[in-house]
Amino acid sequence: MPSYPESVASLIAEFERMPGIGRRTAERLAQHVLRIPSEDALRLAEAIRKVKERVRPCAVCFNMAEADPCHICGDPLRDPSLICVVEQPKDLVAIEETGTYRGLYHVLYGTISPLDGVGPEDLTIDALAARAAKGGVSEVILALNPDIEGDGTSLYIAKKLEKTRVKVTRISSGVARGSAIDRSSKSALSESLRLRKPSA
Amino acid sequence: MPSYPESVASLIAEFERMPGIGRRTAERLAQHVLRIPSEDALRLAEAIRKVKERVRPCAVCFNMAEADPCHICGDPLRDPSLICVVEQPKDLVAIEETGTYRGLYHVLYGTISPLDGVGPEDLTIDALAARAAKGGVSEVILALNPDIEGDGTSLYIAKKLEKTRVKVTRISSGVARGSAIDRSSKSALSESLRLRKPSA
Repeated sequence: MPSYPESVASLIAEFERMPGIGRRTAERLAQHVLRIPSEDALRLAEAIRKVKERVRPCAVCFNMAEADPCHICGDPLRDPSLICVVEQPKDLVAIEETGTYRGLYHVLYGTISPLDGVGPEDLTIDALAARAAKGGVSEVILALNPDIEGDGTSLYIAKKLEKTRVKVTRISSGVARGSAIDRSSKSALSESLRLRKPSA
Repeated sequence: MPSYPESVASLIAEFERMPGIGRRTAERLAQHVLRIPSEDALRLAEAIRKVKERVRPCAVCFNMAEADPCHICGDPLRDPSLICVVEQPKDLVAIEETGTYRGLYHVLYGTISPLDGVGPEDLTIDALAARAAKGGVSEVILALNPDIEGDGTSLYIAKKLEKTRVKVTRISSGVARGSAIDRSSKSALSESLRLRKPSA
């Protein structure tokens, strides 16, 4: 005999499929849905529906957007000669929130990871190469995560873009700026040592 | 210029209204919804809709259920002379999962809390008193949280049921059974000292 009605058990199962949501949290969220007024719960259901209906990858940069091209690619005030390459849309959002970058983007949707069966052809790298080859691009900035997959994918892209003569750079990494040496993780610290540069 | 398309920003806002979901988690959940196939996302939307459509409080015990009376109140194998009183449906689920209780329940939906403006009339206490007065009930077991509000509400209910002559008990509390003294919280330990009982 189940302790939850069938529809509640289904909702818990759906919540549990989400990243970082365990059984306990899924139960708590379902209880919350039970408790709130119907119109509030249906607004959440509707928001999910709308996102799937309206949001598509931009045909130029592959950012998730309601317009195509997206509001960044379509913005005449942005510098089209700069392309910042990120792994995921959330990375683009994080960079946008700094308010310091005025170029365009390119979203890869992952990194090359042979162990997970992800090759270059599963990412948007060919489209990036086509953008760079088309002219009008002066620099491709690789803002992939500072880890092994990010390193490997950055190397792959740099090599792939070699013949376009476009400058390819990568954002700096090491110990976090503004943090302290003794509060850095061992891996960040040892990596920052390994990647040491001549002092200016 | 927003970094998220409008529908994505709405979805993030809806996720953020949920308990224990901060901005970062809400963004992560929205990105997840963007990434998964439409049919998976719509299944979540549908599950929310179904719960609000089908689940109602049981007219007898107020447990959230699709049937009325609920599957517990309607189960002829359960002992109708025992009523276990809990604050929330999730407490009922926790007790059901122990597999050791075979009586019925009564869900209060909160505790008396004058500071939050919650009085006895906002809970299902009158309905509980009516159930106890109707006869056939031998014991009301109070399984409210072992905190100040749970204590106060338990006292209130015990007093309210006095004239029904039904036995009113409360689950034991103190340091957690199976735990260790030196790993108990200070408050659990000091409360267990205050509530000490004659050794059998």
